[in-house]
Amino acid sequence: MKNLKPATEALIGSLQELLGPQGWVSGTADTGPYVSEWRGLYTGSTPLVVKPANTLEVSSVLALCNEHCVGVVPQGGHTGLAGGAIPGLEDKAEIVLSLERMNTIRSIDADNFTVTVEAGCVLANLQQAVTDAGRFFPLSLASEGSCQIGGNISTNAGGTAVLRYGNTRDLVLGLEVVLSDGRVLSNLNGVRKDNTGYDLKQLFVGAEGTLGVVTAATLKLFPAPRGTATALLAVADPGAIVRLFSGARDALGDEILAFETFPHIAMEMVEEHLPGHRSPLDAAYPWYVLIETAGQLSQALIDQHMLSFLEAGIESGLLTDGVLAQSEAQRAEIWKLRHGISEAQKLAGASIKHDVSVPVSVIPDFIARASDAVAQRLPGIRPVPFGHVGDGNIHFNLSQPEAMESGEFLDLWEEMNDLVHSLAVEMGGSFSAEHGIGYLKRDEMQRLSDPVDLDLMRAIKHALDPQGIMNPGKLLLP
Amino acid sequence: MKNLKPATEALIGSLQELLGPQGWVSGTADTGPYVSEWRGLYTGSTPLVVKPANTLEVSSVLALCNEHCVGVVPQGGHTGLAGGAIPGLEDKAEIVLSLERMNTIRSIDADNFTVTVEAGCVLANLQQAVTDAGRFFPLSLASEGSCQIGGNISTNAGGTAVLRYGNTRDLVLGLEVVLSDGRVLSNLNGVRKDNTGYDLKQLFVGAEGTLGVVTAATLKLFPAPRGTATALLAVADPGAIVRLFSGARDALGDEILAFETFPHIAMEMVEEHLPGHRSPLDAAYPWYVLIETAGQLSQALIDQHMLSFLEAGIESGLLTDGVLAQSEAQRAEIWKLRHGISEAQKLAGASIKHDVSVPVSVIPDFIARASDAVAQRLPGIRPVPFGHVGDGNIHFNLSQPEAMESGEFLDLWEEMNDLVHSLAVEMGGSFSAEHGIGYLKRDEMQRLSDPVDLDLMRAIKHALDPQGIMNPGKLLLP
Repeated sequence: MKNLKPATEALIGSLQELLGPQGWVSGTADTGPYVSEWRGLYTGSTPLVVKPANTLEVSSVLALCNEHCVGVVPQGGHTGLAGGAIPGLEDKAEIVLSLERMNTIRSIDADNFTVTVEAGCVLANLQQAVTDAGRFFPLSLASEGSCQIGGNISTNAGGTAVLRYGNTRDLVLGLEVVLSDGRVLSNLNGVRKDNTGYDLKQLFVGAEGTLGVVTAATLKLFPAPRGTATALLAVADPGAIVRLFSGARDALGDEILAFETFPHIAMEMVEEHLPGHRSPLDAAYPWYVLIETAGQLSQALIDQHMLSFLEAGIESGLLTDGVLAQSEAQRAEIWKLRHGISEAQKLAGASIKHDVSVPVSVIPDFIARASDAVAQRLPGIRPVPFGHVGDGNIHFNLSQPEAMESGEFLDLWEEMNDLVHSLAVEMGGSFSAEHGIGYLKRDEMQRLSDPVDLDLMRAIKHALDPQGIMNPGKLLLP
Repeated sequence: MKNLKPATEALIGSLQELLGPQGWVSGTADTGPYVSEWRGLYTGSTPLVVKPANTLEVSSVLALCNEHCVGVVPQGGHTGLAGGAIPGLEDKAEIVLSLERMNTIRSIDADNFTVTVEAGCVLANLQQAVTDAGRFFPLSLASEGSCQIGGNISTNAGGTAVLRYGNTRDLVLGLEVVLSDGRVLSNLNGVRKDNTGYDLKQLFVGAEGTLGVVTAATLKLFPAPRGTATALLAVADPGAIVRLFSGARDALGDEILAFETFPHIAMEMVEEHLPGHRSPLDAAYPWYVLIETAGQLSQALIDQHMLSFLEAGIESGLLTDGVLAQSEAQRAEIWKLRHGISEAQKLAGASIKHDVSVPVSVIPDFIARASDAVAQRLPGIRPVPFGHVGDGNIHFNLSQPEAMESGEFLDLWEEMNDLVHSLAVEMGGSFSAEHGIGYLKRDEMQRLSDPVDLDLMRAIKHALDPQGIMNPGKLLLP
């Protein structure tokens, strides 16, 4: 990275000529949308945004930039939460490579349950095309209307269906990647078993554009579920939640699509701050679980299977209360409560966020210790730990004490991060479960990762991108 | 690799001293079992077999060998089919590193659905320990009584449950690996979501010991299925098989554990050559499908769900005939037919074997074209294409013409391999679906793989093992 140079006029001219008038923008006004983060947390700069139309053009762009030692920031839908797609954050005027024009679905092979799609395809468009072909692509996240599949792959996105279908990595059968020197690595054959050496594609999934540019992918498809059952349950404490989850896997297996939890304070905030949000249960309880199942059985059988599980839970005393949605409308009401938490928390004052994961069995202990630790540092702080129990992924978010001034609370951001991240790692977990490293957590990565891991990552980075032009300054410190 | 040296007396002495009398064997008699392949296809040699007792000893062994530029061949249960674990095949007297003493199950976390186990644990012992803990580990292969989990990981083993649970890669949550210079890379935390940089463990899965030594792993566990349904079906042709598979996924989803196929000639060979093997169907048919489902429903519901699917298949004309096992004994009878194919084929004369994969949708076309191609080269040849339809994995095995002399037929081995492998790759498939490269297919790998892939693999090999001491001469040509 230390060898990187600013783009010369000559290089910019060559790129513009290569790509033609549709293929680039420059100037502060036109590059604006490409250099600032959607929440306004980061704003950078770039001399040129290139928008190649195909893999060959991506290859030519990278070969030229590599020859000139100019940094390149690959960019998808620009919805990331870690600043990974922002150029020019450290006085390096990198070029932005937007995949937006490479948005074709190349083919859907229904009998092979695969789709081959270009990186710039918006996730919702991909979902729709697959549905139209009688298949199901399970990746689903809040930003699906604007995020692009190449970005999902480069950040190994999580989302709401991880428990059943895995992270994005698990959905990738093959990739087409342009390497830093312009060479193209391509394996889009859609084969499910292939033991011919190192599984190179794995390196690029979650690499956040630091090893090459993902230009296309072959992804796994599934049969669309024929029925869904959704229930909201009340339990006493996190220990009961973990026991309930074990029991649910035993009883319902991979019918389970989602197993989410949130505490009383979250329900309270949602009911207080969001109009039309109301618990379907008759009383308030210390903890809630949202469980959803789906499968190829008839709706009646899926409901019946879920009901048997709930009845056994009530009988054993593990469940205090529960309600099974009887209609699509009731199902939406239940999900609204879970999805409203972030918004409600925002309306309840300033909050400091964490996206950590620990082994599922450690969740109760983690919640207890982390809650103690932050309360010790700041009495009156209100932890709102909620999230994907089945993935061990807790959004351990902290609301300010009611009386405190917001700015004063937010000054504690880094200190609280340090505390919560260190504890998660100490308890065998990760400080970055699904949102990635980008620019935001690069220093945390340096602080909390094993030095052997970091050394190996640097060795691989050097082997694949010896000039360091790919998304410099992101993910890894040089 | 060209820098490798033979082990000096001094190095051998140091290793013996380091490991103590339990930790090594030498001499032709004692090293014999470690240097020859179980079918007798390869026999090598070694000056020393080391049997470290723990990760620290593995680390010390590799550090010493790396310092002395001496090659090391990691070895598990020694059941591979590609010669990947045989030392001294090219006049390099590598040391064998057997993991057999590192066979402890370190922990089972039932609530997290994970097990942490050392590499030398025999697969069947691992399965049993997990079952005793009320969980299920789905990896299952013919050699499970002697293969070791470290070998399964290093070869990304397939087996009989891939369709439902994935290859070994999909079961690995974390690895402990000793690198060529003795450093230890370790991530055994059992976390399901962790986006902190490159997913390094993926490099070692399927690397066949060429990048480091896997010493332990944290693996995913599942709830044990509560019921199983197994049926043998008759269909007209491979096109119908693919349509049936699509329909089965739609109707039965992930209840499907296995979807295997074999042709009339395979049934004929099994019935003729293996006593007590008999089709449960009343007539002979051109193609057979073995389908098995399992799940958390009651046995009655699982049977009922399968029956509905079979009835719909008969009604639509896709299925010609079919029988659902009514007991564990009947289930075993059906599987015996499928498992008997290799043995029956052996008794029917010499055979030339292929382990290829193609996209599922391409299977009919591949079988037709490959059958034509081999018949054109050798009239009277008898293709017996059978295997894992759901994985696109066909064991395209060729039985000799009835009248031919066996040796004469086997002389065509390489020529037939070239033909079938090239066709599989040309049709978007792989010439090595589940058995790995090892020494056997190293030249095929060089011939059939994309040069960019090979370059990148060499760059990674060089970054992780600069002296080239790890399993030299296997998988990749230097």
